[in-house]
Amino acid sequence: MQEFIYHNPTKIIFGAGTIDKIGVTVAPVAKKAMYLYGKGSIKKNSIYDKTTASLQAAGVQLVEYDGVKANPVLSHTHKGIEIARKEGVEAIVAVGGGSVIDEGKAIAAGAVADCDVWKFYDGSGAEIKSALPVFSVLTMSATGTEMNGCSVITNEETKQKIGITSSFLQPVASILDPTALFSVPSDQTAYGAVDAVTHLLESYFTKSDSYTPIQDRYAEGIIKTITEITPLMQTKPNDLTARSTFMWAATLAWNGLAPSGVGAWNVPNHLIGHSMSAIYDTPHGASLSIALSGWLPWYAEQSERNVNQLIQFGKAVFGVSDVDGTIERLREWFRLIKSPTKLDDINVDETGLIKIAENIGKNAPLWNMPEYNAKFCESILRRCK
Amino acid sequence: MQEFIYHNPTKIIFGAGTIDKIGVTVAPVAKKAMYLYGKGSIKKNSIYDKTTASLQAAGVQLVEYDGVKANPVLSHTHKGIEIARKEGVEAIVAVGGGSVIDEGKAIAAGAVADCDVWKFYDGSGAEIKSALPVFSVLTMSATGTEMNGCSVITNEETKQKIGITSSFLQPVASILDPTALFSVPSDQTAYGAVDAVTHLLESYFTKSDSYTPIQDRYAEGIIKTITEITPLMQTKPNDLTARSTFMWAATLAWNGLAPSGVGAWNVPNHLIGHSMSAIYDTPHGASLSIALSGWLPWYAEQSERNVNQLIQFGKAVFGVSDVDGTIERLREWFRLIKSPTKLDDINVDETGLIKIAENIGKNAPLWNMPEYNAKFCESILRRCK
Repeated sequence: MQEFIYHNPTKIIFGAGTIDKIGVTVAPVAKKAMYLYGKGSIKKNSIYDKTTASLQAAGVQLVEYDGVKANPVLSHTHKGIEIARKEGVEAIVAVGGGSVIDEGKAIAAGAVADCDVWKFYDGSGAEIKSALPVFSVLTMSATGTEMNGCSVITNEETKQKIGITSSFLQPVASILDPTALFSVPSDQTAYGAVDAVTHLLESYFTKSDSYTPIQDRYAEGIIKTITEITPLMQTKPNDLTARSTFMWAATLAWNGLAPSGVGAWNVPNHLIGHSMSAIYDTPHGASLSIALSGWLPWYAEQSERNVNQLIQFGKAVFGVSDVDGTIERLREWFRLIKSPTKLDDINVDETGLIKIAENIGKNAPLWNMPEYNAKFCESILRRCK
Repeated sequence: MQEFIYHNPTKIIFGAGTIDKIGVTVAPVAKKAMYLYGKGSIKKNSIYDKTTASLQAAGVQLVEYDGVKANPVLSHTHKGIEIARKEGVEAIVAVGGGSVIDEGKAIAAGAVADCDVWKFYDGSGAEIKSALPVFSVLTMSATGTEMNGCSVITNEETKQKIGITSSFLQPVASILDPTALFSVPSDQTAYGAVDAVTHLLESYFTKSDSYTPIQDRYAEGIIKTITEITPLMQTKPNDLTARSTFMWAATLAWNGLAPSGVGAWNVPNHLIGHSMSAIYDTPHGASLSIALSGWLPWYAEQSERNVNQLIQFGKAVFGVSDVDGTIERLREWFRLIKSPTKLDDINVDETGLIKIAENIGKNAPLWNMPEYNAKFCESILRRCK
């Protein structure tokens, strides 16, 4: 095990019915808050009514700002910052999935920054020094943003989708009410599950320290659970047990615990997937199942250590003990839950493949993975099947 | 899964050499701190020199208070509170194992309380409303107190050893430097390992919700790891990998994650063990291996669900699939690492057994386990072997 700092002060309020607690959670911190949400699905399933009622009953004045899109974009973030400043809000309450919360964090940082918020994302070295307090009510589990300091924003002009991490972006508190997931459709459920699994797999495989049994078993246990319960969430969307289990699993998958102590590690599948999303607006999870389908076979060929890792993973999660079988079982699970495994599944042709590879190559140095140049990424993308 | 609140803001600074960071960690919070430690073993292994040098270099004035004993006692706590008040310290820096940190928390609460500190422990209903900030430098891994709000104090007069939990007792930051464990002797290493395993087993078995695969696998993974590496720590005390892995495992075993979402649960083995320690000053971990050796066979007889839990545990951790085999494998592990499994091992005779059973019966209502009356506990203690 290697040295690390782990500090995760987000308060998690978990359980059916906990949405009603958002008001008393925010009120001690802010009298006026931006109420941020997406395209309005929360108005169809009572989440909007419950959260606004709870906040208003607690005396929190709300400045509504809606229209956050999946893969949230810089232009909408800019407008949110403008409103937050003009209205003098003291906190951001993000009600939605990863996209809404990520944009909420960007607005929180941008509202008090003395530079353009994109400077925090574009690798130019600008550092977040403070942010408005962020609260979240999670309505789609996937990215883990409800319990970490990460935020991913897409710059539509430069076609860059970039993620950053800062302790100032860590939510003060997040409400995890699994009944809020009942209305998540089957495809989004699958993409969320793939996202959570990929979060764990990134450090599981790329870690520099090879003896980390605590972290390995932590990841294996959560992944095994997710693979077991995802089909149930799809066939019985209102199954509270399955939704609860997944909701907590997805949070634990990306809250900093899994990679603590594993040494250096990186996120090649996220790098690859982000470029697909930036160009084709591919759902994040869908891009990751494609990336893993091509990256894993390449990874297995690189060393004996990698082979052993895949065998350990296969045994623990699928009960198989060979590399090809392990990769194929993972692909089978993607297909079972209907998450794509190849570019053809998302209608990307040869020209598109090259475009994605070039985009990855452009971003790779920013992600500290300069070896993922266009040519190399082309070869990875050709393995996706 | 059931509802829960998880909030663990302690900052963990982990790694070989991190002891030197205690000064810069404490300085922003306190200019004058109580420096609390035990019987002086930290003076033999350079931890005292390193911590005081780091704190002084950062400008923190130290008020030394030593002599904390294993199973820390109320009288010594009282004296510490007196000193803390008189000197006007702004924080407690506890350098030691669970006992030193637990007493540090009690002093932190007592120093700013308007009642006697024991009132927080004795079940009379007094609630902690604030406390001085607590920092810890961990020198023995076992209780998990470095990343939770628990504190256990023994009242020598009433022969009661009682634990409490409060968010105000949560350390602000804890330094986990695994090299500090190199000098932990073989017996204390074993007791620490047993303590960590027992922490996980309490909620694993007694939980009210029966479908909690995330929490089950979390516990199984950590316990399996601890059972594998403890003998190595005993034969190679300076093995950094083993000490690092165990140090993090013990913290994760009692930081609130394992029982989050499992519903109601309790700590019968701690209840039983605390009475042994209160009367015979039995090391905490040693009392727990005895308790488990008697409690598990009783537990297995109570229901089919319990049987299935034991089989699941045995399969995951020891690769055996029957109840008797599972319990015997756990006892064998206790014997291997030289932690006792029966009262005879700690020289407690028939009269002593009755005395312990009566003490448990007296404390049981305070622990919300009134069914653990003297007569019932006598029968549990007779099963220890």
